[in-house]
Amino acid sequence: MTTEVMSAEETAQPARDEIELGAVLHALSDPVRLRMVAALDGDEERACGSFDVPVTKSTCTHHFKILREAGVIRQRPHGASRLNSLRRDDLEARFPGLLDTILRSVPAGS
Amino acid sequence: MTTEVMSAEETAQPARDEIELGAVLHALSDPVRLRMVAALDGDEERACGSFDVPVTKSTCTHHFKILREAGVIRQRPHGASRLNSLRRDDLEARFPGLLDTILRSVPAGS
Repeated sequence: MTTEVMSAEETAQPARDEIELGAVLHALSDPVRLRMVAALDGDEERACGSFDVPVTKSTCTHHFKILREAGVIRQRPHGASRLNSLRRDDLEARFPGLLDTILRSVPAGS
Repeated sequence: MTTEVMSAEETAQPARDEIELGAVLHALSDPVRLRMVAALDGDEERACGSFDVPVTKSTCTHHFKILREAGVIRQRPHGASRLNSLRRDDLEARFPGLLDTILRSVPAGS
């Protein structure tokens, strides 16, 4: 069994008050990332590999990094993988209504 | 007096139904563009030069192009310049509440 030690940098995220509107909008401006966020909506933690998105694992990892650094999701180490969850409470406190309004705007079937 | 003829491409914009969520979020993810959009909110038409933003005229023109191509603003020729206006009705019809929620999230003083 491989033991992976994740550096602090690999799971670093902004504090609630440091979440920037521009970074959040940029993070959500990509259709794949938006789909990941929509899939995370519901307070579950999900591993990177569990998303039904048409991208490679490394691209998926890259998208999660952008979402995490923007403050949209948090990631925590879980064995050799990571578990991702939506920072719904932080986003709602910082930008009331924003996440729901954006998720409602996602075209059906996308 | 110089007469400038603007090509159709220079004022091209998506039809209401072609406005994409990702493009709108990307267009609004830049603090300068967000400030321009906030300044346009109120149904006025404004010339490129009338915005109090810390960028050169060519950068300003570039930002307006991104906003126009995303469907956030329309531009029409006016002499040697262009007048810009917000496509509030189109955005509201396509993504109800999105523009207001984003504008409400802009930090005060930015």
